[in-house]
Amino acid sequence: MAQAYQPLTDEGAIQYVRQLPGLFEQTAELVNREIGDGNLNLVFHIVDQQSDKSVIIKQALPYARVVGESWPLTLDRARIESETLKKEAERAPGLVPKVFHYDPVMALTVMEDLSDHIILRTGLIQRQRYPRLAEDIATFLAHTLFFTSDYYLDPASKKELVRQFINPELCNITEGLVFTDPYYDADTNSFNPHIRPQVEAIWSDAVLKREVATLKESFMTKAQALLHGDLHTGSIMVTDSSTKVIDPEFAFVGPIGFDIGAFLANLFLSFASHEGQPGSITERREYQVWLLETAQQTWHRFEQQFRTLWQEHVRDEMWKTPGYVDQVLQEILVDSIGFAGCKMMRRVIGLAPVADLETIEDERVRAEAERLALHIGRECVLQRRSITDGDALVHLVQSIAAQKEVQI
Amino acid sequence: MAQAYQPLTDEGAIQYVRQLPGLFEQTAELVNREIGDGNLNLVFHIVDQQSDKSVIIKQALPYARVVGESWPLTLDRARIESETLKKEAERAPGLVPKVFHYDPVMALTVMEDLSDHIILRTGLIQRQRYPRLAEDIATFLAHTLFFTSDYYLDPASKKELVRQFINPELCNITEGLVFTDPYYDADTNSFNPHIRPQVEAIWSDAVLKREVATLKESFMTKAQALLHGDLHTGSIMVTDSSTKVIDPEFAFVGPIGFDIGAFLANLFLSFASHEGQPGSITERREYQVWLLETAQQTWHRFEQQFRTLWQEHVRDEMWKTPGYVDQVLQEILVDSIGFAGCKMMRRVIGLAPVADLETIEDERVRAEAERLALHIGRECVLQRRSITDGDALVHLVQSIAAQKEVQI
Repeated sequence: MAQAYQPLTDEGAIQYVRQLPGLFEQTAELVNREIGDGNLNLVFHIVDQQSDKSVIIKQALPYARVVGESWPLTLDRARIESETLKKEAERAPGLVPKVFHYDPVMALTVMEDLSDHIILRTGLIQRQRYPRLAEDIATFLAHTLFFTSDYYLDPASKKELVRQFINPELCNITEGLVFTDPYYDADTNSFNPHIRPQVEAIWSDAVLKREVATLKESFMTKAQALLHGDLHTGSIMVTDSSTKVIDPEFAFVGPIGFDIGAFLANLFLSFASHEGQPGSITERREYQVWLLETAQQTWHRFEQQFRTLWQEHVRDEMWKTPGYVDQVLQEILVDSIGFAGCKMMRRVIGLAPVADLETIEDERVRAEAERLALHIGRECVLQRRSITDGDALVHLVQSIAAQKEVQI
Repeated sequence: MAQAYQPLTDEGAIQYVRQLPGLFEQTAELVNREIGDGNLNLVFHIVDQQSDKSVIIKQALPYARVVGESWPLTLDRARIESETLKKEAERAPGLVPKVFHYDPVMALTVMEDLSDHIILRTGLIQRQRYPRLAEDIATFLAHTLFFTSDYYLDPASKKELVRQFINPELCNITEGLVFTDPYYDADTNSFNPHIRPQVEAIWSDAVLKREVATLKESFMTKAQALLHGDLHTGSIMVTDSSTKVIDPEFAFVGPIGFDIGAFLANLFLSFASHEGQPGSITERREYQVWLLETAQQTWHRFEQQFRTLWQEHVRDEMWKTPGYVDQVLQEILVDSIGFAGCKMMRRVIGLAPVADLETIEDERVRAEAERLALHIGRECVLQRRSITDGDALVHLVQSIAAQKEVQI
């Protein structure tokens, strides 16, 4: 065991896993490849060429590289990630990578290799359909969120959970990049010059900004359940028959709707991007229908599973009041749609663009898709209180896309 | 210094303060009287008969005596109380007792003697008027709450504050006794048999109970600012020219409206109690008018001071959105009225009755006042979203009292 933190070298990573009991045979022929993007973490992929057995080492770096500059970050996020993975595995078994080893000094986790999976975002850009996706994500959300909330936990354990997952640095990234910077002319913003009029309209829209401020406050103060905290389609890995949620380093106790909204936002961003991606109109429209069905089904199955868990596990006299679960679910839906809207707008205006839109090569074509994404995001924030189910949400998105068609 | 916790004896308390530097002269002739009710804490009043200088020692006991039985409580609440008093003194100087010494091992605080003050609740029962009360409490609330919220603190300091004041045991008391037990036939309840029909109507009112459940959830999850946590009129000491807020052992980071609501609830409980207290109708009506004016002025001055602090100190781009402070204040008002309603109902139905009502000797006369308190509490919870200022709140209370007159 290391006495002090040091970033692993390629050779050091091999030595590190070799000395861990129970992972590899003594005769293993280990080869290693660093596959991280190096912005926040080192990621090593280590394979035994004899047995084909493989693992991933994810090691936190003491900084984030943001637009070329270094932003110091504590290594505590490695603890938060490994402890969250453990809690998620308890409540949503099979839907997160297995953790083999966590080392607090080296700020690293040795975990299951998911090389047979691909990043969901990549699959969506390629117009792949994943029949298990809605059900698996609904299961992940319902179980990880319900069982870490005051609806299930005794109040003292819940407060201990809040303490365990206080995560100021990673929350600060979200507070800035999702809820603040996109709404004024911040240095961190980066957007297609063709959509400047739409972006400036957002900057001067006080009604919209008051709603975003309300959602930002919810993010900062509404300690409902242990969130993944960054559940976009780049944090999900898939095959036709498997779904895995990875990278919970942004975990903290926050509003339930934030995780649901993150996933919905990324389906809607994909929806908008396929306005501008190549392919026949039929092919693109059919895929967009599948994306909206997935969104609708995710909410529908989340709601059903959440109700089942509620019925089985809720003991508190007040939560058992007839009709209270309906009120809770309606509030979660409204929050989810609001957060989805914020997450969409920030991906168009802010620092971290998404490949779904970025891969559209023609700037003018991309601007069309981006305007649609901004419009859907804005209406999600403004109209969220009038949406009462997944069908109404999908109808809202469809009607905005249809308006756009008319304008063209 | 003691090596381990032990409850102080009368003689031990004198020895304890004598060895503290800077408090008393070596020649001091100290006499001591234990003045606590012994339920949660020992409270010693120590006077130097030579100089007349005096201090209070408040020492936490490792249990609470509730209806004769012992309920274990950690001594951590002594830390929470002394650290909260320190923060309150920074932001609302002169409105809390001075702390001379805090001893974590002995779980005790040596503080300013306020024997020249009386407990506000006692003053209200005696129909005393306190011209500074509304202004002082508004100042206390605006400053302690604003400066410990995300409107002022940088996000990392705010999250550290949440951690520092996680207070599961004392919150648990409120969650049970304020937000749960009064709403079903719980063993802890204790109420006047003459109001059983009204209490049973509350137990079967699902609309009301859903609203109370929502408020309970806000109490448990809405981490807005460092609260006093128990700001009833027994936690305030007064003279004609001074107001001191004492006993913040229930402090935690929670919804801003909870402190404001606690104070309003206790003014309204006093209002209801003077229906049944002795004295001429004119005298009682005039005093009730003063109580409502005090409630109205407290909100009005809180709002004004909060706006001033906002204008001077808010730096966050999103909070600076035009009109956002209005929205924030409206939500605080709605929360305050809802919490006030819960606090009123629990004092009539639940474990901890208030002397305002208990001192009405005739059970039937007391029942009249209790029914009025329940009615005001219920309507505060149900109608809170339609109240937009202090005048409307006072009008609501007046109109309920007037309905009662008509019924009589």
